[in-house]
Amino acid sequence: MQRYFVNSNQIDENTGTIRIRDTDVHHIKNVLRLSVGDKLVCCDGDGADYRVEITGLEGEEVHCRIVAKTPSTGEPERLRVTVAPSLPKGDKMDWVLQKGTELGAFSFLPFSSIRTVVKLEGKKVSKKRERWQRIVKEAAEQSCRGRIPQVEPLMDWKGLIGRFADFDQVLFAYEKGGAPLARLLTERGPGSILVVVGPEGGFTDEETEEARSAGADIVHLGPRILRAETAPLALLSCISYTFGEMGGEPL
Amino acid sequence: MQRYFVNSNQIDENTGTIRIRDTDVHHIKNVLRLSVGDKLVCCDGDGADYRVEITGLEGEEVHCRIVAKTPSTGEPERLRVTVAPSLPKGDKMDWVLQKGTELGAFSFLPFSSIRTVVKLEGKKVSKKRERWQRIVKEAAEQSCRGRIPQVEPLMDWKGLIGRFADFDQVLFAYEKGGAPLARLLTERGPGSILVVVGPEGGFTDEETEEARSAGADIVHLGPRILRAETAPLALLSCISYTFGEMGGEPL
Repeated sequence: MQRYFVNSNQIDENTGTIRIRDTDVHHIKNVLRLSVGDKLVCCDGDGADYRVEITGLEGEEVHCRIVAKTPSTGEPERLRVTVAPSLPKGDKMDWVLQKGTELGAFSFLPFSSIRTVVKLEGKKVSKKRERWQRIVKEAAEQSCRGRIPQVEPLMDWKGLIGRFADFDQVLFAYEKGGAPLARLLTERGPGSILVVVGPEGGFTDEETEEARSAGADIVHLGPRILRAETAPLALLSCISYTFGEMGGEPL
Repeated sequence: MQRYFVNSNQIDENTGTIRIRDTDVHHIKNVLRLSVGDKLVCCDGDGADYRVEITGLEGEEVHCRIVAKTPSTGEPERLRVTVAPSLPKGDKMDWVLQKGTELGAFSFLPFSSIRTVVKLEGKKVSKKRERWQRIVKEAAEQSCRGRIPQVEPLMDWKGLIGRFADFDQVLFAYEKGGAPLARLLTERGPGSILVVVGPEGGFTDEETEEARSAGADIVHLGPRILRAETAPLALLSCISYTFGEMGGEPL
């Protein structure tokens, strides 16, 4: 069933109604071509799902009647994993955002490092960020997330390092060394984890040392080289799995 | 360092030489534009890596001198995971093959199920398979695999079910039910595992029952819906991780 995120001011629990607005209205009317009586799910992005039935399609809003309210189930309970990808080329960033959202990422911190090929400046930066946020919103709807992960503004290397202190653990992917993921995860409990992945050319030794000095755990994922867009998804999968967020109890 | 796979008949350990042939010659001469003296790695696809130095670039072969021979390190030691994706649309199959190879898949069994949208017939089937095998070969080179995973011919549903008996365990991904992955993996040791993933529309209840009757374990990966191209990579990551193949000891 199609899922849309709504703000709390669109929900009226007293009258048992929800009003859908903006681009979702176009999607309902012109893409899905739904009718009065069709069912949807609206999520408030804060833990609640509303099963609704369309009652009106005229005008600029879609009016719905709340049929049932249930807790959202798509959010990880025990941990928050933020993915920081150093901008990969082409559509690989789209891929990381889409699949990262499916795999439960809490938010995204795109950044530039020494070997980042893609250079974004001026108006392009905000345009890109808007597009990335749209990709994440659609992926959150499709994968039944309970909230829309935020894509933070593009940051530089210093900015990224400065954010390390906000997390319980920082995992810095470096193919030339570091500890196995399994050991790093069992040493600490769940909480907030930042996963930092380099661009196609990887990180320099100096960047890795700087990350280590700033408190990051250097992690490697085995003998095979993972591409810039594969590594964050492998890490997200394994971390979620370890803490019971891919179905089942924590390992 | 660039990696190429060679057959045993291209390797002469007596004279300490290797002859690179066919499309790789074009890649060395015209894409990478290497010269005499440049270094490469040749893998025999059977456990050995040869560090070589180019000695001759004339003609249809590239001649190399063996500098050192070491064991390949890119192959999983404890288990073999075969990925069976029901043909997804567009370039999603390419993603599954490429990233599946990076993540250590042993081989690929593409198949059609009831809800598969893509229909391949006649000459298109063999053309596609050639293309898929090329993608896997390039990914195996780039990710430093010790062998090139095979892409089997496209099979139908009955054909796939008939292959279940070849594996120690079959994991059948079904988003509407099944056991958590962690429980299914700890019940059995490593060995040969077949991971079966549906197309965009998923599997029908009947297909799932048929798979279960044929001996498959029905697995689910938690509350979030994973796309057809995401699920195999998440499963591969978690299975490899559990058995110590993403770096580190088995969990």
